[in-house]
Amino acid sequence: MVKGKIVVHRYESSVLKSNPLKDPYMRDVIIYLPPGYSQSRSKGYITIFGLPGFGGQGRTWLNADALGENIEERMNRLISDKKCGPMILVLVDCFTKFGGNQYINSSATGRYEDYIIKEIIPFVDKRYNTSSRVVFGHSSGGYGSLVLGMLHPDIFSGLVDHAGDAAFEYCYLPDFPKALDSYRQYANSPKKWLDSFWKKQNHHNKEDGPPLNVFAMAAHYSPNPKSNEMGVDLPFDLKTGEMLQHVWNIWLSWDPVRMVEKYRNNLKKLKFIYIDCGEGDEFHLHWGARILHSKLQRMNIRHYYEEFDDGHLHTSYRYDHSLPKIYSVLS
Amino acid sequence: MVKGKIVVHRYESSVLKSNPLKDPYMRDVIIYLPPGYSQSRSKGYITIFGLPGFGGQGRTWLNADALGENIEERMNRLISDKKCGPMILVLVDCFTKFGGNQYINSSATGRYEDYIIKEIIPFVDKRYNTSSRVVFGHSSGGYGSLVLGMLHPDIFSGLVDHAGDAAFEYCYLPDFPKALDSYRQYANSPKKWLDSFWKKQNHHNKEDGPPLNVFAMAAHYSPNPKSNEMGVDLPFDLKTGEMLQHVWNIWLSWDPVRMVEKYRNNLKKLKFIYIDCGEGDEFHLHWGARILHSKLQRMNIRHYYEEFDDGHLHTSYRYDHSLPKIYSVLS
Amino acid sequence: MVKGKIVVHRYESSVLKSNPLKDPYMRDVIIYLPPGYSQSRSKGYITIFGLPGFGGQGRTWLNADALGENIEERMNRLISDKKCGPMILVLVDCFTKFGGNQYINSSATGRYEDYIIKEIIPFVDKRYNTSSRVVFGHSSGGYGSLVLGMLHPDIFSGLVDHAGDAAFEYCYLPDFPKALDSYRQYANSPKKWLDSFWKKQNHHNKEDGPPLNVFAMAAHYSPNPKSNEMGVDLPFDLKTGEMLQHVWNIWLSWDPVRMVEKYRNNLKKLKFIYIDCGEGDEFHLHWGARILHSKLQRMNIRHYYEEFDDGHLHTSYRYDHSLPKIYSVLS
Amino acid sequence: MVKGKIVVHRYESSVLKSNPLKDPYMRDVIIYLPPGYSQSRSKGYITIFGLPGFGGQGRTWLNADALGENIEERMNRLISDKKCGPMILVLVDCFTKFGGNQYINSSATGRYEDYIIKEIIPFVDKRYNTSSRVVFGHSSGGYGSLVLGMLHPDIFSGLVDHAGDAAFEYCYLPDFPKALDSYRQYANSPKKWLDSFWKKQNHHNKEDGPPLNVFAMAAHYSPNPKSNEMGVDLPFDLKTGEMLQHVWNIWLSWDPVRMVEKYRNNLKKLKFIYIDCGEGDEFHLHWGARILHSKLQRMNIRHYYEEFDDGHLHTSYRYDHSLPKIYSVLS
Repeated sequence: MVKGKIVVHRYESSVLKSNPLKDPYMRDVIIYLPPGYSQSRSKGYITIFGLPGFGGQGRTWLNADALGENIEERMNRLISDKKCGPMILVLVDCFTKFGGNQYINSSATGRYEDYIIKEIIPFVDKRYNTSSRVVFGHSSGGYGSLVLGMLHPDIFSGLVDHAGDAAFEYCYLPDFPKALDSYRQYANSPKKWLDSFWKKQNHHNKEDGPPLNVFAMAAHYSPNPKSNEMGVDLPFDLKTGEMLQHVWNIWLSWDPVRMVEKYRNNLKKLKFIYIDCGEGDEFHLHWGARILHSKLQRMNIRHYYEEFDDGHLHTSYRYDHSLPKIYSVLS
Repeated sequence: MVKGKIVVHRYESSVLKSNPLKDPYMRDVIIYLPPGYSQSRSKGYITIFGLPGFGGQGRTWLNADALGENIEERMNRLISDKKCGPMILVLVDCFTKFGGNQYINSSATGRYEDYIIKEIIPFVDKRYNTSSRVVFGHSSGGYGSLVLGMLHPDIFSGLVDHAGDAAFEYCYLPDFPKALDSYRQYANSPKKWLDSFWKKQNHHNKEDGPPLNVFAMAAHYSPNPKSNEMGVDLPFDLKTGEMLQHVWNIWLSWDPVRMVEKYRNNLKKLKFIYIDCGEGDEFHLHWGARILHSKLQRMNIRHYYEEFDDGHLHTSYRYDHSLPKIYSVLS
Repeated sequence: MVKGKIVVHRYESSVLKSNPLKDPYMRDVIIYLPPGYSQSRSKGYITIFGLPGFGGQGRTWLNADALGENIEERMNRLISDKKCGPMILVLVDCFTKFGGNQYINSSATGRYEDYIIKEIIPFVDKRYNTSSRVVFGHSSGGYGSLVLGMLHPDIFSGLVDHAGDAAFEYCYLPDFPKALDSYRQYANSPKKWLDSFWKKQNHHNKEDGPPLNVFAMAAHYSPNPKSNEMGVDLPFDLKTGEMLQHVWNIWLSWDPVRMVEKYRNNLKKLKFIYIDCGEGDEFHLHWGARILHSKLQRMNIRHYYEEFDDGHLHTSYRYDHSLPKIYSVLS
Repeated sequence: MVKGKIVVHRYESSVLKSNPLKDPYMRDVIIYLPPGYSQSRSKGYITIFGLPGFGGQGRTWLNADALGENIEERMNRLISDKKCGPMILVLVDCFTKFGGNQYINSSATGRYEDYIIKEIIPFVDKRYNTSSRVVFGHSSGGYGSLVLGMLHPDIFSGLVDHAGDAAFEYCYLPDFPKALDSYRQYANSPKKWLDSFWKKQNHHNKEDGPPLNVFAMAAHYSPNPKSNEMGVDLPFDLKTGEMLQHVWNIWLSWDPVRMVEKYRNNLKKLKFIYIDCGEGDEFHLHWGARILHSKLQRMNIRHYYEEFDDGHLHTSYRYDHSLPKIYSVLS
């Protein structure tokens, strides 16, 4: 089997320097260079920007799994088996104190959209022999891919959205009452809840999922510098739980199933759109995917759409479907 | 211990005669007469109309529980122990092919509000020595009590809402994607799903809860005689799952946390309002209860409000809190 | 539809009078007399003794279920539809402070085997026109039926075991560590745990199942008058959890999959043996049933054996399979 | 922060060369060398042999976790903070087609005990400046540590058992009926089930846990070259589920709570024994730990014992308790 090469850059970001969470602005940019990579090949390499899912970082894509493959092993195998040709893969790190990232600019977390578009992409372009760019991810990373692709058809030629957040009523709203239950134990304050979360030794308790996730989404979709809750408006009254329609509407303006109509022309510019989702997705993202698929069809926007018989997690084997398609369409 | 008496009437309803589901119009009306009940006592008896929860009937309130009490045993004990004075209890049966009732008129189920207000109450008044009326229930029965009380302050002097449906985003919406998953297995048709449900031998499978409940709620809140789905509009597109805002808005017009503002003057007329909910309610109804409580406070509407440390089910011990209060306030 | 009649006797038991738990010795004996029952018909009626499952009582078999049938409705329907002929049904009450009964004599609970065999059966025989007797039940009641049938082939002509306790390693042992967790919260004392359980208002919490069930089983299988834990030996050390092989061996001597070999000759005397179980039984009783079935086959003991696609609860529709077979074999 | 160094050796094993599963015999041996490591320091370094848990490999200890630390980061921090002095850590890879390893020799899996004792330890000793050895692990790795420590007090000076398998009735037996359910779908054959498991794309389905784990444990505890099920005897009849006492007894002979009595003298030779477990361990291993603790106390075997408020997974923060103790006792 031919093997690619992993290069880890340490990049100092100007954009993130004064981020409000004091999260690191010096971060790893991990580059997978395919077997036989040549800096001087006349045709540049398709370059895939991998956005990690919630709770992940670029480097977690390289984690070993005795029962599976990491992204490096997968790329090597696909290329060795001629399922696809050589491509560059860039793994970014956008982890924040909210536990993840949605890859959009926010006064509450930092300008991570700018970080990727204005810093990482030029950084990579400058150092490597790149051609078309694809934004790629699963879950929150799938969301980020869909949104960044939609917003920047000039930057990206394609996007891959594996089980990305969509149809916010189905993927987020069911967690609101659970998150409220958790905040209530900390004087109805998400901020206090989060402080306490980071003091725990085990950050993988199932019941911490909803309060962490809801706060993180609010930090991305409805930041408000005037709010005492870490500069974040929650979409509900923290005491009674009553939904605040004006905040919720801001969230909905970031919902892909709503955005696609607004960014229809941008989407038409993309050469490659891939969306899939497991039919048993525990966050109900298959319904979001179906709405997306239906709207794209109605707007005559060309895209690949697949469903498969599985849930949300441990589905990186699906990249075997998207990665070869990227190559065959864009090369 | 002194003991009351159960009388079962078989009542033929005109209102339900041509109900669209061909559900029975000849139904039991179960009357609990307290120990020492006298038809001729000068002061009539406070009369409580008990509305069963989803899946229940009047007679299920009389079911034996080796580990607890049924309503007859509870009334006998409370009266024997002088926790409250003698009261009449009327248990109605409004069960439908949708698996329950929300106690409002609907072209898809029947006119159950009219059934109670225009038929059962006069029927009881005519035969028994009644005075003030209270509408009383848990879960769907709590919902029905709150709504019927709000709509008919001329008929009822009080209402008791134990963990009633409220804040529909939290109690119903999380079931939508699950219901959609179920309907999808039956050609995206709730009607076909329900047909198949009734052909099963076991009607108590946990996974049948969401599709049954969502269809039943739609049958009450958004009936539409033109719909092929048993005359019911669902609040989402059956193929893609996309929420239909105009249907959902009709649902929300039936949400107690929204209705209380509209019926503020009616609520002020009631002499007794009791609301409680378990802090760990699995349907998140404690958040609905908190919103209700907060709105009633803001509008200066007198009411009892209690929370307790338990979930949604097996909480009839809470009637020990509401029943004595009914008597002490209204007698 | 033809209808039978329910008669409730209040029977004062001598056998239970001094039971160690001070449970009632005056108990209901509920008799279902079939449509057209005649005290003087020359051929007596097959008489079925129904043993309730854990947590149940005779009267809970009569509980209404809007989504199903109670035993009276079922008998009426089966007889009306000529699925079976008229039979008498006797519903006994053996509920104890341990939450149920296994229908064997125990110094820790009382002599419930004697209660049924020596008191209830003669009581029924004296008052009603009985012929062959069948012992019948589900879960703990299925266990009791299998065991009482095996021990008393002179008394019973047949037995019906729906999903009865069997293969104790699979149905009880997995609950031991959970029960130990619960007892530990009460100074490692099952007695203290049970005291506290009865002080609760809600006796239907899921997490109370294992500690209640394990203590109850120990009360039946390994009573020991010298034990401070209500005269019961537990099959494990209460502090460390270490299994006590000598106590566990006593339990195993009461395991139907072990008993059938010892009582092989008794089993051969029975005219009717019926065993079934759901393939998805949550207590893994289908494996017990399979072992039973295989051993009975090997010993050439005639029996009906069925599996079906369901779990443990809400399966009384299976009585539609057993009740007609009782009649056709024994009439 | 001072930083150690990771060295990865590729070691060709003679012992594993003809292993029956055709699992790799060329495997990574991962070495963590502490900051300031010196090949020539007069006092050698305490050397910890880390045994991965079920499903893991040496390299998975190095996996990144945005919400936590990997073992390298932990060691660096502990040493930097002077919580412990410099120690070598050796991470072995014993992954097999059964999904993990129990670190004992087995005709069905390979001679992994020999692999560690006879190959890896000499290999490490030869290349690095080692002194006392400690065997260390969590879950299956904790089991392996306890057993290898007990069997080889001449080789190891200490052992660390974090939540290791113990009290087999509680940690394994509850999975038997679930495993049987899975095998039954494959003609009652664990071999066929495993073949199908490896053909799946997602190897992390929750319901595959019991059949995989039970087969793997049988492969270690009750191998039998004559068995058609990959040379493994299962502790139950594959058709009826009946437990096979003679096979189960062989399992029990490998249960640490039974082994400690036999290896009492060996245990006394160890200078350091550390055992802990979460009080809410989902595999009930806290009861195994309590039995172990109690037996060691009774035999006057010095050891550290701790319980903590958590479950089984994501508890590597507990190494902050054991690693410093290793150093303080053995340095």
